[in-house]
Amino acid sequence: MKAHASVRIDIPFHDVDAMRIVWHGNYARYFEIARTVLLRQYELDYPEMEASGWLFPVIRMDCRYLSPLRYGDIALVDVTVEEAEFKMALGYRIVEEKSGRKIATGHTEHAVLDRDFNLLMPIPTALRDRFLQGGAPSAPP
Amino acid sequence: MKAHASVRIDIPFHDVDAMRIVWHGNYARYFEIARTVLLRQYELDYPEMEASGWLFPVIRMDCRYLSPLRYGDIALVDVTVEEAEFKMALGYRIVEEKSGRKIATGHTEHAVLDRDFNLLMPIPTALRDRFLQGGAPSAPP
Amino acid sequence: MKAHASVRIDIPFHDVDAMRIVWHGNYARYFEIARTVLLRQYELDYPEMEASGWLFPVIRMDCRYLSPLRYGDIALVDVTVEEAEFKMALGYRIVEEKSGRKIATGHTEHAVLDRDFNLLMPIPTALRDRFLQGGAPSAPP
Amino acid sequence: MKAHASVRIDIPFHDVDAMRIVWHGNYARYFEIARTVLLRQYELDYPEMEASGWLFPVIRMDCRYLSPLRYGDIALVDVTVEEAEFKMALGYRIVEEKSGRKIATGHTEHAVLDRDFNLLMPIPTALRDRFLQGGAPSAPP
Repeated sequence: MKAHASVRIDIPFHDVDAMRIVWHGNYARYFEIARTVLLRQYELDYPEMEASGWLFPVIRMDCRYLSPLRYGDIALVDVTVEEAEFKMALGYRIVEEKSGRKIATGHTEHAVLDRDFNLLMPIPTALRDRFLQGGAPSAPP
Repeated sequence: MKAHASVRIDIPFHDVDAMRIVWHGNYARYFEIARTVLLRQYELDYPEMEASGWLFPVIRMDCRYLSPLRYGDIALVDVTVEEAEFKMALGYRIVEEKSGRKIATGHTEHAVLDRDFNLLMPIPTALRDRFLQGGAPSAPP
Repeated sequence: MKAHASVRIDIPFHDVDAMRIVWHGNYARYFEIARTVLLRQYELDYPEMEASGWLFPVIRMDCRYLSPLRYGDIALVDVTVEEAEFKMALGYRIVEEKSGRKIATGHTEHAVLDRDFNLLMPIPTALRDRFLQGGAPSAPP
Repeated sequence: MKAHASVRIDIPFHDVDAMRIVWHGNYARYFEIARTVLLRQYELDYPEMEASGWLFPVIRMDCRYLSPLRYGDIALVDVTVEEAEFKMALGYRIVEEKSGRKIATGHTEHAVLDRDFNLLMPIPTALRDRFLQGGAPSAPP
């Protein structure tokens, strides 16, 4: 089973714009909060990345906005590893908890670099296995 | 000629992350700053939008990251109207001024709604013409 | 007993700056997250404010930074009503959960306005009582 | 004459909150943009700080909000060195360009540290002179 994680975000007032909906650029923050939980579960968060020498810079992102989030809504953000062969690709889905409304879908793509900023392609087997078979994760936080 | 605009952004310290590069989510802000200048040139900024009753919510965005921006870099952001038939689609390019490095490309797509939140499809002719033929813009700011 | 509340914030990567510490301006967001929980407990959150006609715009804020927060730290943010006579004054304290380090102290002051933006001074008794005697709060969320 | 600088900020849409005014926490960003211009004029921006070994972390900030900023307003932000003996203290004033309205006043205080994070107190003479007598600034950008 592919690695995945989910988080619950109580929309704060300062994320909402003059149209009284979450400003679209804030979704990148919600995706990152979910991605961090995923990487922590699989022991690949920033400190481990730095220790291992692996870096995962974002090389592409997209987001499709289906329904707006408002102040006081609860965003459930799910993230799943979609590819871990030549790059790391993650898929995201956001649903509003109380209404069940579909809010957004999106993706991020990440290069995998070693300590000296060399592009690793294909991705090292140890890393690929951890993502694609969900191998040896630590307990979720 | 299609409507277009460009802006120059001196990268502030608070946009840079722990990797000492501009955090990827901030590019949505840079795109919006360029988009605002475009809409002002064509008299379609938020106050005019509200007066006319037209609203352009973001329904999709993407960004491809080619080279990082650092603190002290100057980002030149160009935006061009790419489509104005069934939705409004804008394309963006970011180049670093001093080095000429290509930084990023991206897109936003916007629905066109009237005052009562009805989806206007196809886009009203008056609006389409202003975007696609660059008609009757006010002087750039 | 004066009204108070507390929240727990897992520091996200995008809040950290190039010095690898939380950028100082983000503390205003942490204060607001705690303040929102306080106002919800006392049924004075934004929707209730709008319904009641009361508005609490920030008229002053300060923050003293004692020790930095880093990515992965857990910030415990406490907020207490300090004054509710002529204005609403709130005090904040941030402690890092794992180490117990004192991170910051701060204050916000808020005017109390009615629906027509008239300044209410002194503050209406119903509101003052709710803050100063912690009266009739709803259950914490 | 004490060191000072000023900047002009065209308020972007994403800085405005659901009350249709600039969210109060964004003023820390405006202060920092002005401070950066000041430090660049006096050759004390982050790269020089790092080269010299001097660091100026924010240890305190405050802001008094006098009148709201709205989307489309132009904020003129002035910063002046107010103290450079035992710590560096800066004062800020924001005025709206078109109306002349006084928007805000504020302060930041900064410790002065050397390369090994030792607190330098009093501040080194070379630094103090540059701030208090406005000595040997480079040309403004």
